[in-house]
Amino acid sequence: MGGTTAAEDRRWMAMALSLARRGLGRVAPNPAVAALIVQDQRLLGRGVTAPGGRPHAEAQALAAANDLAGPEAVKGATVYVTLEPCAHHGLTPPCADALVAAGIARLVCPLGDPDPRVAGRGFERLRAAGLTVDIGVMAAEAAAINAGFLRRIEHRRPHLTLKLATTLDGRIATASGESRWITGPEARLRVHGLRARSDAILIGAGTARADDPMLDVRGFGANAPQPVRVVLDGRLTLPADGRLARSAGTQPLWILHGPSATATEDRAKALTDSGARLIPIPGDGREVDPGAALDALAGAGLTRVLCEGGGRLAASLLRAGLVDELWLFTAGKAIGAEGTASVGPLGLGRLAEAPALALDRIERVGADTLSVWRRS
Amino acid sequence: MGGTTAAEDRRWMAMALSLARRGLGRVAPNPAVAALIVQDQRLLGRGVTAPGGRPHAEAQALAAANDLAGPEAVKGATVYVTLEPCAHHGLTPPCADALVAAGIARLVCPLGDPDPRVAGRGFERLRAAGLTVDIGVMAAEAAAINAGFLRRIEHRRPHLTLKLATTLDGRIATASGESRWITGPEARLRVHGLRARSDAILIGAGTARADDPMLDVRGFGANAPQPVRVVLDGRLTLPADGRLARSAGTQPLWILHGPSATATEDRAKALTDSGARLIPIPGDGREVDPGAALDALAGAGLTRVLCEGGGRLAASLLRAGLVDELWLFTAGKAIGAEGTASVGPLGLGRLAEAPALALDRIERVGADTLSVWRRS
Repeated sequence: MGGTTAAEDRRWMAMALSLARRGLGRVAPNPAVAALIVQDQRLLGRGVTAPGGRPHAEAQALAAANDLAGPEAVKGATVYVTLEPCAHHGLTPPCADALVAAGIARLVCPLGDPDPRVAGRGFERLRAAGLTVDIGVMAAEAAAINAGFLRRIEHRRPHLTLKLATTLDGRIATASGESRWITGPEARLRVHGLRARSDAILIGAGTARADDPMLDVRGFGANAPQPVRVVLDGRLTLPADGRLARSAGTQPLWILHGPSATATEDRAKALTDSGARLIPIPGDGREVDPGAALDALAGAGLTRVLCEGGGRLAASLLRAGLVDELWLFTAGKAIGAEGTASVGPLGLGRLAEAPALALDRIERVGADTLSVWRRS
Repeated sequence: MGGTTAAEDRRWMAMALSLARRGLGRVAPNPAVAALIVQDQRLLGRGVTAPGGRPHAEAQALAAANDLAGPEAVKGATVYVTLEPCAHHGLTPPCADALVAAGIARLVCPLGDPDPRVAGRGFERLRAAGLTVDIGVMAAEAAAINAGFLRRIEHRRPHLTLKLATTLDGRIATASGESRWITGPEARLRVHGLRARSDAILIGAGTARADDPMLDVRGFGANAPQPVRVVLDGRLTLPADGRLARSAGTQPLWILHGPSATATEDRAKALTDSGARLIPIPGDGREVDPGAALDALAGAGLTRVLCEGGGRLAASLLRAGLVDELWLFTAGKAIGAEGTASVGPLGLGRLAEAPALALDRIERVGADTLSVWRRS
C-alpha cells in the first residue's frame, strides 16, 4: 500500500471506470459506480452498481473479496471507487461504514458525490475512521461517465445528447422523405450502443409520425437495456396504431404533451390503454417547452437522454442551450437544398448568436465520420 | 546498388514525392516531378520541375550531382524519379537520353507517364540502354500528387477539388448573408495552402458579387504562387469595380461566360480593360455548363482547380459528377434552416441517386474538423 505509485492508482482507476461505464442506461437515477478491492497490487474483488441502483458497488466488491480471499485478506486493502461512497442510511446501510468495518486502509476516488445526502460526508467519515483518502485520480473521466447523474443533481436536468446523422451537406432526408439509410451499418450500430447507454430516447411527434420508428436497442444481445421512448407531442397526435404505441407494453413509452392536449379524449384513452404514460407539461403554448420537458424527465428519475430528431426538436434544444453533447455522423453523400435540414429554423440575428459547441473527438466509423462535440 | 532494399527505395521515393509536391500550383500543364541521384545510399543531387515546367527534374538533379560530386561519381548511380522520364524532343532534350549519357545504372519510378509522347517509351529507352528499371514503388502516392496532370491527360479535365466550410448543420452563411467567420484561423490557413497548390480557384458569379472576394494566397510568403481566379458568369454580371476585376492586372482573372453574354458590350470592355480574360463557353442556356467550363480550363492548360462556392455551383458540379475531391471543414456551430445551404438544389428523385464520395481521411484542424472525400 505504502508503495503504490500514481501510475498504479491510475491503472486500477481506469479499470474501475471501464466497469462503471457498463452500468450506464441501467441504474438511473443512481450513478453508475464501480469499486475494486486491491491488496498488494492484487485484485481481491470488484463490484458495480446493480441494475436499478442497489446494491451499491462497494458492498458488492466487499462481498466478492470476502468470498474470494476471506475477511482477513481484505484488512489493510485499498478500495478504488469511481464516486464518493455514500454515508447515509437509504435502502442499504452506508457504504462508508461497510468499508470501515471491513478494515479497508485506503480509499482512492476521483470525485465527490454532490448528492446533498453525501456531499463530502462519505470522505469525512472514512478519514475520521483513520483511512487514507486520496481524491482526484482521473476526475475528468469519472465526471464524463457520470455526466447524467451529476447534471441531474446539480441542475435538475438530464444530460442531453443530440445525435445527427447527415449527408455532407447537412441533410437527413430527401424532399420525398427518404432517409434510409444515409449512414452505414457501422454508424447505426454505434447509435444502438449510444441508445443502450441512455435512460431515454427523445423524439418529436413529427418524426414519430413520419418515420414510425421502434427506437429499441438492437445488436447488443437479448439483455441489452431498452431505454424509455419519449415523444414530445404538444397536441397529442401520436397514432395509437403506430409501432411505438403498439410496443408500449414491453418497452416504456412516455408521451409529453401540452396542457390542453388531453381534450382529445379518445386518443388519450387509446394511448393509455396501449401502455403509454401520458405526462402533461405545464406551459402556455401549443408546443411543449423543451426545458420544461427535460425538467419533467429529470423529475421522473432520468439522467441520460438521447435526442434522435427531428430537425425542429434539434433546433429548439440547441436554441435553448440544452444540448450537452452532440454526436454528428456524416456520410459521403449530398442530397442538396431540397432535402430536410438536420437542424430546423433557429431564428438567429447574427452569426455570433449561433449555438456553439467544442470539439471533443473525431473518428472514422465505417464509410462515415463521427465527430463528438460538447458544451463549451 | 545491388544491396538496395525495398525499404530504402521507399525512403528515397518518399523524399522525392515530398519534393515533387512543392511544384503543385507552379508547373501546369506539366506534372510536378522530382528526381534524386543516389549512389551507395548517398544523395548526390536532386531536382524538381522548375516553375513553368522547364527544365525537367532529371536534368536539374544530374546537373546538381555533377556540381557536387563530379561526373565520375554519378556513373553507376540510381535515379529516383516520381514520373516516367520523357523520351521525346520537346523544349528540352529527352531526360531518358540524359540519364543514359550520365551513366545511371538504375531507375526507380512509381508510374508511367500517360502523355502519348511518352507512354512507356521512357522506360523502354532506358531498358534498351541496359539500365535496371523498377516501376511501381509508391505508385498510389505518386498518382495522388499528380492527380491533376493525370486527369487532364487521360480525361481532358482538370482535377477538381470542392471546398466546403460549413456549420454542423451544413450552412455557409446566415439568412442575412453573414459568413465571416464560420471556421477558425487554422482552417482558413489550410484553405490558403490548398489554394497555393491549385492552378486556379473557381467560384460562381453569385458568390463573387455577394462576397467580393480576393481569392489570393495569404500566409505562405511573398513567393507563394497566386492561382488564376476563374468566375463562372453566364450572363457576364461581374462588376468591373469589384476586388477581383480591380486586381486582374496582378493576379489573373478569367471570366467564363455564355455565348450571348457579350451583348453587354460596355461591361465586357470594362472587364477586359481591367486585365480580365473573357472566355466564351459554347452552350445553349443562360447558365454555363460546368463540364464545358472545365473542358475549357483543361484546354487552357490548367490541371488543378479548387472550387470555393457557392452552393449552386457546388450542386451543379456534384450533380454532373465532376468533383474528384471534397474538403469539408466543419465548425461546432449551428445556423439553422434559414441559413444558406452549402449545396444548392440537386433535383434528386431517390436517395440512391445522391452523389457519393468515399472517405479518404479525417482530422482536427484547430477548433474545427476536416474530412477529405474522394471520387470512389
